[in-house]
Amino acid sequence: MIAEKMVGLVNNNSAIRMMFEEGKKLAAQYGAENVYDFSLGNPNVPAPAGLNKAIKEILDEEESTFVHGYMSNSGYEDVRQIVAESLNRRFDTAFSKDNIIMTVGAAGGLNVILKTLINPGDEVIAFAPYFLEYRSYVNNYDGVLVEVSPNTETFMPNLDEFATKITRKTKAVIINNPNNPTGVVYSEDIIKKLAKIMEDKQNEFGTEIYLISDEPYRELAYDGVEVPYLTKYYANTVVGYSYSKSLSLPGERIGYLVIPSEMPDYKNVFAAAGIANRILGFVNAPSLMQRAVAKVIDEKTDIEYYNRNRELLYGSLTSYGFECIKPEGAFYLFVKSPVANEKEFCNKAKEFNILIVPGSSFACPGYVRIAYCVAYETIERSLASFEKLAKEFNLK
Amino acid sequence: MIAEKMVGLVNNNSAIRMMFEEGKKLAAQYGAENVYDFSLGNPNVPAPAGLNKAIKEILDEEESTFVHGYMSNSGYEDVRQIVAESLNRRFDTAFSKDNIIMTVGAAGGLNVILKTLINPGDEVIAFAPYFLEYRSYVNNYDGVLVEVSPNTETFMPNLDEFATKITRKTKAVIINNPNNPTGVVYSEDIIKKLAKIMEDKQNEFGTEIYLISDEPYRELAYDGVEVPYLTKYYANTVVGYSYSKSLSLPGERIGYLVIPSEMPDYKNVFAAAGIANRILGFVNAPSLMQRAVAKVIDEKTDIEYYNRNRELLYGSLTSYGFECIKPEGAFYLFVKSPVANEKEFCNKAKEFNILIVPGSSFACPGYVRIAYCVAYETIERSLASFEKLAKEFNLK
Repeated sequence: MIAEKMVGLVNNNSAIRMMFEEGKKLAAQYGAENVYDFSLGNPNVPAPAGLNKAIKEILDEEESTFVHGYMSNSGYEDVRQIVAESLNRRFDTAFSKDNIIMTVGAAGGLNVILKTLINPGDEVIAFAPYFLEYRSYVNNYDGVLVEVSPNTETFMPNLDEFATKITRKTKAVIINNPNNPTGVVYSEDIIKKLAKIMEDKQNEFGTEIYLISDEPYRELAYDGVEVPYLTKYYANTVVGYSYSKSLSLPGERIGYLVIPSEMPDYKNVFAAAGIANRILGFVNAPSLMQRAVAKVIDEKTDIEYYNRNRELLYGSLTSYGFECIKPEGAFYLFVKSPVANEKEFCNKAKEFNILIVPGSSFACPGYVRIAYCVAYETIERSLASFEKLAKEFNLK
Repeated sequence: MIAEKMVGLVNNNSAIRMMFEEGKKLAAQYGAENVYDFSLGNPNVPAPAGLNKAIKEILDEEESTFVHGYMSNSGYEDVRQIVAESLNRRFDTAFSKDNIIMTVGAAGGLNVILKTLINPGDEVIAFAPYFLEYRSYVNNYDGVLVEVSPNTETFMPNLDEFATKITRKTKAVIINNPNNPTGVVYSEDIIKKLAKIMEDKQNEFGTEIYLISDEPYRELAYDGVEVPYLTKYYANTVVGYSYSKSLSLPGERIGYLVIPSEMPDYKNVFAAAGIANRILGFVNAPSLMQRAVAKVIDEKTDIEYYNRNRELLYGSLTSYGFECIKPEGAFYLFVKSPVANEKEFCNKAKEFNILIVPGSSFACPGYVRIAYCVAYETIERSLASFEKLAKEFNLK
């Protein structure tokens, strides 16, 4: 008797989440140290020490009814101002608290902005490969997700095809930079071209087309690569951020939306997003965690840890004959499957206790995602198994 | 360019939340001690001391990547088992972790179960007066909220009218016990009659009709009154709980759903609810707070504090000539407006710096809600103003 929309989802649940559950079972069976679970973007680096210290100070120094109580649905005003000023320092922007809505993670933020913008039948464009939850989020508001096919040479957005997919019904475009699952970072040049296409289409159709930038991996960029701040390139941009990766807090559900004043309908969008945060049942971002991230606003995760993982895993897998673009950001390798049906490859990997996620889960079959946000030692221990796996498929 | 559904909401935002924002402005203008803000159910009693202690212990003793990391979308298994066992001890039920889904507060839980159950056009019945957000929650899934009119003599559910409003399209019934905004508690006798009506209608129509019990006020019952546990009376019951009031944690967004195994379609409903929790963007209930409430599972807020408030405010207002049922639970008085248009009354009250919410916000015009989850001293200081207000309307 469940809703019709849910039936398909129950029968075909998230491959990533099922892999996560399976990993727990395998760990119980073989011992955690003998299972190489690369399935989920669950950071292995602890939260910065300052975070727990900040939480304790808040509990000791601030009133319980304030710390654990209701605030405005958009979040504590002082927290929002601190977030705005941190962005201004780092990206030369000019935000204030009136541009920030604290949200229940980036997933909460994306749902808030989609609820705010989408009418039934509106189209939302995403570039494959993309995080498949985007489809569920868009469907929550009866929108239609429109895919741009992947450029498997570079995994940069296919801008020619993009231009042809924008219609009068296009209400939003979602990009994810640095990218899950490929690890690529879209350069300023690409962002400028993308913005130009969107501006032109807005003018052609006389519509507003929103660019929704999902940025949980913003701080995870290697080798000094720059990640452009999108509000500077396109006025109808909404940024969704999460502290899940940058502070290793994925379970805490804490993030924010940026809605810039330059947006032509800024006032309505900002007001509606605050209301959407309430009526979707989030009500507000978790209160203690809002105050905690504000206290450690300039702390970052240990990017060098992930960089070591990246170098070891990328170097080893390519030496075994696997094909893969070297990621510049996030903590994923997107590896070409040695057989066309990558699910077969994932199943074979599982025989070696290696858990990886099929590219079909990102609208990009023929590839697999390997999340390297694990212990360095897990990667070290897994290498012999990866080498055997390569031999199974006669690589090299 | 916001979504059509949002336009009306932006133009006609929650009266309760607007009052809350207004209260902050008045407090800045006149000083917080001279503003009597009875608008929001934001507990003034601090969280139990054990809660902050539990948080610190967790931070000291448990792994950061575990405490702040992803877990199953339904919540930590040990936390869910602790919640289940606590319910079993107190209500003689037989739940296990497989009946519990940790949620982002009760508002999150209600959205999860409505997403799980509601097809577009399905009807959901609520008894006026009711928390008006129910209408938004039902509309989120394109359901239709059907009201049963209030019984203003007793504020008990109008069961005769209820029976006539159940149709083949009725998918769910929401009750809120103890009740916001009236403070009444539905007795076992009433629950049995309500359950009988629903059983009969299920049989008549060959449908499943779910009883959704929204229970953030369960622990706030005075004078030893019993609050029946609904899964024991009706198999298709889902309980939504929140720690917002019982542990004074409304900002933390932590609660749970109970989905009993006796429910005929239990397996699908439980699986779909876990997925709904994920795809609505909650992902999971905040992780640290899950672990914290489990450690203080048997702690309760200081009910005697609210009881003193209740006695003082009820006794004083009735002595000034206001009409009101004495509440047995929650922390609200639902007072008859001395003039038919209660908004006029609320505006007059605001001239005395008293902030109260019109009954229209609960589908029950002609009444006002006074939230007495404030400092006892606030009530004391407000009494002279309430007395003047009564005189303005020639009461007594």
